[in-house]
Amino acid sequence: MDKIPDIIIGRLPIYLRALQRMEEKGLQTTSSQELGEHVGISAAQIRKDISQFGEFGKQGTGYNISYLIEKLRQILKVDRIWDMAIVGMGDMGHALARYQGFTDRGFQVVRIFDNDPEKIGQKVGDLVIEDSADLAEKIGAAGIKVVMLTVPATAAQEVANQLVQAGVKAILNYAPTSISVPPDVRVQHIDPAVHLQRMTFYL
Amino acid sequence: MDKIPDIIIGRLPIYLRALQRMEEKGLQTTSSQELGEHVGISAAQIRKDISQFGEFGKQGTGYNISYLIEKLRQILKVDRIWDMAIVGMGDMGHALARYQGFTDRGFQVVRIFDNDPEKIGQKVGDLVIEDSADLAEKIGAAGIKVVMLTVPATAAQEVANQLVQAGVKAILNYAPTSISVPPDVRVQHIDPAVHLQRMTFYL
Repeated sequence: MDKIPDIIIGRLPIYLRALQRMEEKGLQTTSSQELGEHVGISAAQIRKDISQFGEFGKQGTGYNISYLIEKLRQILKVDRIWDMAIVGMGDMGHALARYQGFTDRGFQVVRIFDNDPEKIGQKVGDLVIEDSADLAEKIGAAGIKVVMLTVPATAAQEVANQLVQAGVKAILNYAPTSISVPPDVRVQHIDPAVHLQRMTFYL
Repeated sequence: MDKIPDIIIGRLPIYLRALQRMEEKGLQTTSSQELGEHVGISAAQIRKDISQFGEFGKQGTGYNISYLIEKLRQILKVDRIWDMAIVGMGDMGHALARYQGFTDRGFQVVRIFDNDPEKIGQKVGDLVIEDSADLAEKIGAAGIKVVMLTVPATAAQEVANQLVQAGVKAILNYAPTSISVPPDVRVQHIDPAVHLQRMTFYL
């Protein structure tokens, strides 16, 4: 499945999210048309995307929602719970540490770090902020592969280097800067100003 | 410039961010090679993207950083400051209200809303949380075109409808659900679980 274009992979979490919402509402089956209306993607595109991975729907009867959820979870490897760490406990780090939307989607925050002596030792929910001084050792020993990076832009690359050294393979980067990582490490960026600027072009 | 592919528009804020960082470091000129190394995009792609909008660099001498920043700001329409509202003052709304990264990038938060009586009237930084009961009127009267939506998924579509009614043209949607808007309204989604699932596929 390595040859599947990244843009298709990027749409699968959107489908999964919409299906989970349908399931919460008590729905049992759906069609590519109905799913398409929910996510703003054409029915033909959805059928094509999903068919890359197998035959999960039936002509005429559509998709069984819970079955398709199960399959998408397997494909995206969120049929398990990934332990995550947050590095950088500013406002965004705090918001993410308390975010309720991870647990039924394959993730849980298990460790939180900062380098500020005044923050270290403080509790955020059930977690205690740990010193990031020996970050690589702690992350490596815990076997954590997924990290949310919420440090200032000036610190992002240095911390990313430590995460790579610790064996981290997926970084969700909230720092407003690009970071360089080896090819076997994935990075996704969340920067509200970048998303906003992408829209103002059209205004 | 309406015909320029959205994927190119999406890269311009990344270039702008990297150029602003270079300028902060005191650099005056750069090349598509150097910029490419910063953002992880090929020099050829950068040259091609930027040339869609005019001739901003010179063969051999590269780009004048402050000039290219000025041009990209004009293209993205962030050579001005856009007033923004935040609707939904949970943890994420609070973090965004206090976020320091907007001002030099074309945006400022000027109004914040929630429907919780216990939150209404509370201060967040210099702003006071307002009642979202008459949201459309307030947003419309203030002429606000850009909104960050940080309400629960179950409320997102209803609030989005009010924003559209109020004349909002760009919504940065943090609610973990898709929302439907008319074709003249832009929506960008930020959902950490979606970004994370897009990476776990590769792990």
